[in-house]
Amino acid sequence: MFYHVKELQYNARVSKPDPRFARLLLEQFGGCNGELKAAMQYFVQAFGCKNPYPDKYDMLMDIATEEFSHLEIVGATIQMLLTGVNGELKLASETDELSTVLNGKTAKENYIHEAMINPHFFAVTGGGPAVTDSNGNPWMGSYVSAMGDLTVDLRANMADESKAKLVYENLMQFTDDPYVKDTLRFLMTREVAHFQMFEAALNTIKPNFPPGILQSDPKHSNTYYNLSKGDPHKGPWNEGESTQLGETWQYIEDPIKYVNETNGLVNSRAEGTDRTDESVAKHNDALAKERYEEISSATPPADIKWNTYDQKKTTKLKK
Amino acid sequence: MFYHVKELQYNARVSKPDPRFARLLLEQFGGCNGELKAAMQYFVQAFGCKNPYPDKYDMLMDIATEEFSHLEIVGATIQMLLTGVNGELKLASETDELSTVLNGKTAKENYIHEAMINPHFFAVTGGGPAVTDSNGNPWMGSYVSAMGDLTVDLRANMADESKAKLVYENLMQFTDDPYVKDTLRFLMTREVAHFQMFEAALNTIKPNFPPGILQSDPKHSNTYYNLSKGDPHKGPWNEGESTQLGETWQYIEDPIKYVNETNGLVNSRAEGTDRTDESVAKHNDALAKERYEEISSATPPADIKWNTYDQKKTTKLKK
Amino acid sequence: MFYHVKELQYNARVSKPDPRFARLLLEQFGGCNGELKAAMQYFVQAFGCKNPYPDKYDMLMDIATEEFSHLEIVGATIQMLLTGVNGELKLASETDELSTVLNGKTAKENYIHEAMINPHFFAVTGGGPAVTDSNGNPWMGSYVSAMGDLTVDLRANMADESKAKLVYENLMQFTDDPYVKDTLRFLMTREVAHFQMFEAALNTIKPNFPPGILQSDPKHSNTYYNLSKGDPHKGPWNEGESTQLGETWQYIEDPIKYVNETNGLVNSRAEGTDRTDESVAKHNDALAKERYEEISSATPPADIKWNTYDQKKTTKLKK
Amino acid sequence: MFYHVKELQYNARVSKPDPRFARLLLEQFGGCNGELKAAMQYFVQAFGCKNPYPDKYDMLMDIATEEFSHLEIVGATIQMLLTGVNGELKLASETDELSTVLNGKTAKENYIHEAMINPHFFAVTGGGPAVTDSNGNPWMGSYVSAMGDLTVDLRANMADESKAKLVYENLMQFTDDPYVKDTLRFLMTREVAHFQMFEAALNTIKPNFPPGILQSDPKHSNTYYNLSKGDPHKGPWNEGESTQLGETWQYIEDPIKYVNETNGLVNSRAEGTDRTDESVAKHNDALAKERYEEISSATPPADIKWNTYDQKKTTKLKK
Amino acid sequence: MFYHVKELQYNARVSKPDPRFARLLLEQFGGCNGELKAAMQYFVQAFGCKNPYPDKYDMLMDIATEEFSHLEIVGATIQMLLTGVNGELKLASETDELSTVLNGKTAKENYIHEAMINPHFFAVTGGGPAVTDSNGNPWMGSYVSAMGDLTVDLRANMADESKAKLVYENLMQFTDDPYVKDTLRFLMTREVAHFQMFEAALNTIKPNFPPGILQSDPKHSNTYYNLSKGDPHKGPWNEGESTQLGETWQYIEDPIKYVNETNGLVNSRAEGTDRTDESVAKHNDALAKERYEEISSATPPADIKWNTYDQKKTTKLKK
Amino acid sequence: MFYHVKELQYNARVSKPDPRFARLLLEQFGGCNGELKAAMQYFVQAFGCKNPYPDKYDMLMDIATEEFSHLEIVGATIQMLLTGVNGELKLASETDELSTVLNGKTAKENYIHEAMINPHFFAVTGGGPAVTDSNGNPWMGSYVSAMGDLTVDLRANMADESKAKLVYENLMQFTDDPYVKDTLRFLMTREVAHFQMFEAALNTIKPNFPPGILQSDPKHSNTYYNLSKGDPHKGPWNEGESTQLGETWQYIEDPIKYVNETNGLVNSRAEGTDRTDESVAKHNDALAKERYEEISSATPPADIKWNTYDQKKTTKLKK
Repeated sequence: MFYHVKELQYNARVSKPDPRFARLLLEQFGGCNGELKAAMQYFVQAFGCKNPYPDKYDMLMDIATEEFSHLEIVGATIQMLLTGVNGELKLASETDELSTVLNGKTAKENYIHEAMINPHFFAVTGGGPAVTDSNGNPWMGSYVSAMGDLTVDLRANMADESKAKLVYENLMQFTDDPYVKDTLRFLMTREVAHFQMFEAALNTIKPNFPPGILQSDPKHSNTYYNLSKGDPHKGPWNEGESTQLGETWQYIEDPIKYVNETNGLVNSRAEGTDRTDESVAKHNDALAKERYEEISSATPPADIKWNTYDQKKTTKLKK
Repeated sequence: MFYHVKELQYNARVSKPDPRFARLLLEQFGGCNGELKAAMQYFVQAFGCKNPYPDKYDMLMDIATEEFSHLEIVGATIQMLLTGVNGELKLASETDELSTVLNGKTAKENYIHEAMINPHFFAVTGGGPAVTDSNGNPWMGSYVSAMGDLTVDLRANMADESKAKLVYENLMQFTDDPYVKDTLRFLMTREVAHFQMFEAALNTIKPNFPPGILQSDPKHSNTYYNLSKGDPHKGPWNEGESTQLGETWQYIEDPIKYVNETNGLVNSRAEGTDRTDESVAKHNDALAKERYEEISSATPPADIKWNTYDQKKTTKLKK
Repeated sequence: MFYHVKELQYNARVSKPDPRFARLLLEQFGGCNGELKAAMQYFVQAFGCKNPYPDKYDMLMDIATEEFSHLEIVGATIQMLLTGVNGELKLASETDELSTVLNGKTAKENYIHEAMINPHFFAVTGGGPAVTDSNGNPWMGSYVSAMGDLTVDLRANMADESKAKLVYENLMQFTDDPYVKDTLRFLMTREVAHFQMFEAALNTIKPNFPPGILQSDPKHSNTYYNLSKGDPHKGPWNEGESTQLGETWQYIEDPIKYVNETNGLVNSRAEGTDRTDESVAKHNDALAKERYEEISSATPPADIKWNTYDQKKTTKLKK
Repeated sequence: MFYHVKELQYNARVSKPDPRFARLLLEQFGGCNGELKAAMQYFVQAFGCKNPYPDKYDMLMDIATEEFSHLEIVGATIQMLLTGVNGELKLASETDELSTVLNGKTAKENYIHEAMINPHFFAVTGGGPAVTDSNGNPWMGSYVSAMGDLTVDLRANMADESKAKLVYENLMQFTDDPYVKDTLRFLMTREVAHFQMFEAALNTIKPNFPPGILQSDPKHSNTYYNLSKGDPHKGPWNEGESTQLGETWQYIEDPIKYVNETNGLVNSRAEGTDRTDESVAKHNDALAKERYEEISSATPPADIKWNTYDQKKTTKLKK
Repeated sequence: MFYHVKELQYNARVSKPDPRFARLLLEQFGGCNGELKAAMQYFVQAFGCKNPYPDKYDMLMDIATEEFSHLEIVGATIQMLLTGVNGELKLASETDELSTVLNGKTAKENYIHEAMINPHFFAVTGGGPAVTDSNGNPWMGSYVSAMGDLTVDLRANMADESKAKLVYENLMQFTDDPYVKDTLRFLMTREVAHFQMFEAALNTIKPNFPPGILQSDPKHSNTYYNLSKGDPHKGPWNEGESTQLGETWQYIEDPIKYVNETNGLVNSRAEGTDRTDESVAKHNDALAKERYEEISSATPPADIKWNTYDQKKTTKLKK
Repeated sequence: MFYHVKELQYNARVSKPDPRFARLLLEQFGGCNGELKAAMQYFVQAFGCKNPYPDKYDMLMDIATEEFSHLEIVGATIQMLLTGVNGELKLASETDELSTVLNGKTAKENYIHEAMINPHFFAVTGGGPAVTDSNGNPWMGSYVSAMGDLTVDLRANMADESKAKLVYENLMQFTDDPYVKDTLRFLMTREVAHFQMFEAALNTIKPNFPPGILQSDPKHSNTYYNLSKGDPHKGPWNEGESTQLGETWQYIEDPIKYVNETNGLVNSRAEGTDRTDESVAKHNDALAKERYEEISSATPPADIKWNTYDQKKTTKLKK
């Protein structure tokens, strides 16, 4: 169950209205790397952890709840940046009310010009945030990645915190409002904090590479295909040892020849690795059994419930 | 700022896994009439009320927060209905682990068949909810309607609670699980409760029709165009008095003729109404002034803030 | 079968081209509250009424047809507002044709600037309307709500007419063209008229609350959860009687405590209401039977047809 | 202005309900090649023709109106194929009403199974058509192509009629209902008719190739790049004369070499063609002037109107 | 298998940065008529031709590969047009670094103004192309049409090349950069070339009309419904012979009357055509058999493979 | 420029048709974690690296090109899994052709049933792949993340390879075809290889944390908000040192109190860290300067070109 406290987590303020920055800031309200995406992603990931991984569940719900709180901060800031829009729209009568208000501030021509910034602010949302990105694209459920495997989900979260951090960094260049900059700096920094939380959580899972269960085929895990001609470059991604499996990169200089010679790779052989089909199968079996046990032992196959309620406890919420 | 309590608002349980109903129930998780839509709609509507209409803000945030809590109930139920899926996916190794588990339950053929119910449960979400509807369409920000005018937003909410109620009613026919039915009945009933809350709130706003400010043109507010030939029907929507403005319906029997004779309605005249251009203009002006005042007086034009923090108060959260 | 008459329902004109307002007006061509949405919504709702509710079918098809006619008015207005664009695009040859035309009107720089208003007008639609909203989002079938129950569909329509009315009201502030304002005022007013038609139709259905069949659970229909802390407000939505069922609102001051004490609401009891599980069940049964009969008696289970054709009648269409 | 006649253009009937075929048939209701797409495409294309090309406007509006009428036929057929669904959903009470009805027809298990065909028919649309394709994807405005140039738009229409024809042909294999097959055969045939109408209209425009104005660069209009290695094939698309410009195809055997040798084609020269930069420029200029004149002479630059109304004429619509 | 050569097919250059044209040019990167759409469409169409129509497969893969190469040209041009954006975003620190750079070029105000052109360039893509159109709509898989029948697919391709050609023609008006114009002229011309390739390929298929197999119903293939009243026009699309089947157009002056008299067209009769139900059935059968044979004989029903690898051959790729 | 070789990179085969697995496999053709997404993501990321980071450009283009080659493998496999569908669709004539073929294989009823697996295979794509995921959702450009900063992009790629790997792992459970399993194992393994390539590349960039330039605010980088009540858990994500910055986690036990006491965090102070505003500012400045230099020095501000062509070299492509 959620509840809500009227105070924002961060004391968001704006110096003066700024519809242009309101448009830009939509990116973090309803954009693909924004707060709603983050909140929903961790919230949805948490469901599968509820029973088997209660510590990760707690962390994911803590951070999801914080992201919903950040969504509120971003929305409140957009609303403040659009101060004035809603009131002026109420001056809809065709007498000179609007003109009077506008004259003291800006000409009608500018008013129309302003509407081009984001027509939805003026014609649809009445001066509030829209659940879209800065280009007006509606938020989509497909932004959310929750795959039922923490070795994948936590990595996705680290990447997504990185993206969100960069968007905030970019946005900070387009406002001079010190209040807004403060808020953005707070929000940006939280992505840095969350990144490290997810990384720490990933580190508690052993093994966590490759993500999932299957250990990968040693014939194909360390080959590099030189498929892009002109100025080929060497680097630790195609020579030396691979980062996680410690295998030796095999550089396929002429992929077309190699593919033909190996009957479409079917006849290729593992080189530069100690792993064998047998060692892989053994590893796969053991890990499959272990992870299956963790999960299936945590939930009964019937009469499944989510919570036990403590019918004697008393909760007090005071501010 | 949001807070989360690990107990669900309703004690959701399931008797046994049921991936088919899990698919159907997605409709209320990530569907166009579902809980995420409701939660986000009231949450976004609330921003604009924060200062000018604090009572409505409180109501909208209370209900939004409850809808997020319902979203959690629906998600938890889907997760429970998919019990078993995530564990089985971990048996990914190619030995006979999976076969053994499946043999005690269902054949491989059935397992594959089950994947057709919703491939995403098996290939993408690993046995958890997806942010989609029951047909797999991702949730979209365009589901949310928040227009900065309570006479519109509250009506939208009443309609949307009606839709959500009907979906729950429909869904109840497709499960025999008494636990799930209980949960659905609770959720369905809350839509009925919310409908009435929004209606009560709308009734406190005077006038609230027409929605917005402008009173409409008396030449066109009570005409009915008979544009659909064959078996014309009369009813209170095209004869007698109109419901809100109390004007007399004018039935345009032959619209093509009427449109031509009136120079494309430009020469048409108001009939069956006491309203005049003058009375309308006066009404428009007065209402515009009033609503503009309500809104613009509530927020300063500069150095705008959302909250004042009570730096001495202490909040204690105990369960 | 549809028919088309070349005269617009309203004599739409524009004083001079205005690509900016053309962009704004797209909102009502292909936007989520626009004319295509309205037309399609009533059209699709009508299918299910054809046999059991022929009077509602007639009304829905009349209004749907009018909305298609409004879509035409909006599209024609956009086309007129973009006068000049298509012709200039034909001056594509790289000689100085275009420059000559532009010099007499505006510099090349301005021409490029204009393209930023909505690139699709210049690069894709060639100066005509696009089936998008004012931000360029394509119209989507998910805008249409048609749920096979008039107690829901008519309420949806009332809400959607409210939204469309407000958009027109907002748009009117962004043009000074008296012709365009006239057209907008007509279109806006029709939403007011349609609202009342749908309301009148809803009033002919008894009972119509709650929407659908099921009467809701008396344990949960009148509780209000105080889930949003800080400055709680009381109003007719959480104290006194509920608007439709006339039950007494029960204000849950401390929802977390209440949920725990009632074992996740499972042990909660109905208060402030005369309705009981028995009275509800009886009501449900009676209404289910009645509505089922209305619908199933209207269509045969086999050899189903839509129309009977009058093979002797003669239709004459003259203008 | 549109109007509506209650008789369908084609006497659509169904022998008995068939939710599976209803799902398939959605493809032509709200799918990317369906009737709504066709109707909207021709309707939107027509706007730009209103003044400069009244004959094409008439044809486009005639066919658009027919496509709206086909949309109605498809929707009505889907509604008939879903006969029974809406009534059964009304049996929502939890007594044995539904069971009784279902027993006489099919078991509850089958009922649930049926819901998997398209959950939206049962949970959302209440047994009516949805504005989606057969996979549940909502119709999108981006399906519509209307580019303000008849040499492009008419070609698009020919292609789209081809696609729609093939979908109907495919669909016919999945029903045995002779009534439905008759309807599909009619609809399929109309696509064949419309194709030829658009082709005839295209043939009246001279020149119509290349589409648009610019005649293309003779250096690049007749080269064929052999970019796909293994079993190269020769055919009239890379040897002999090109179909429209009658130039001789130049086969670039080794594109990488050719691109390098020509400094990224900048130094390439026109071969196998009589066209020159000069002849092209001349042609471009002449055609630009001609088309610009056609369009700009048809609409005044100010005080633009769509229709003139004949205020004395009388229209009579009888059935 | 694909490979990549670092040289662009065309030597794309830009004179100086131009974010506005970069936005416009996105239309051909991720727009509905752009290069990604073309590349993916021909690529997907090719799969079905692999075995039965190897010559068409070769052509489709050659052109698909060229379109991927054009996508690269367009993306590279956008990147060059955005030169400077990425670097400036790195000056994210709050000292005066950015100001210094901007002063030498443009004021902060202009910098913010520039961000309104396309916020994604500045906040999301860091100065690179986005996979969207010029209005920011993400590219969609539904743009791709590949229907498994070359008589349809090739026609679709001819139409789509026409659209793409027109977009390039339009875009050329909005830049003065001679390098960019050169590139656009090359790309535009290639659409003209591809159109003719597809047309030539279509001409090798006999018969190719109607597309698909079924020959259409002679009762409905040559009727024209006069459904749009006011100024009816005659042309080769409703009088004389139809373009492909050579039937005589039947003009239905009063469709409502005709539909009623013919019992919803069920009793209508074929006129103006020599085709009969029998001749059609015969044609259908013969063509069905022929095309079925072509396809089914080309692929074994089991142990299906895509390629045979020449394990002795050696490929050498040198630049 | 791209090139295509007709041999697949991997010798993909299928034992027999299987439309159900074809549907599942669509997930990796046009799904959000599939091959098209990967190919396009690395391809788009590469543009910004072309000049400043040629080694990363080479790696990204090599892998992008391999992913296009994988897309081809997946598409070819789907096409083979649908063997028979296209041929049968050609038997569209209404004689008994289709029945004859089906009788030897399966009854008409089953044929219709099969169409429910994915109607698009039968009605739209004619037995080929669609550019959608396994639920029929069209691929979207918003799946692609390319943000112009390698410290973000490479992390995104590592996450996305993890997701794709898991999908392949999941899919392998739903087929028994040994050929298909081999292909999936190859593709799955390549994600493991690519993950390590991206990780190695990330490791060559120093510093790479936080992603982007700004070092984050020391007041907020190490706080953990306990926002989710009930069974709080401690772990390395909220106690001890943070993974990258090595700061000491500050656990905010009672966030509501803390937020109020700190005036909405404005008065909070950095604890558990050695970083100060000054050290951060210095770091920010230095890094900004360095990265700005890297990028801006690599591209001239005018007369920008992508390649230099070697007009004397000769390329020979032999198979």
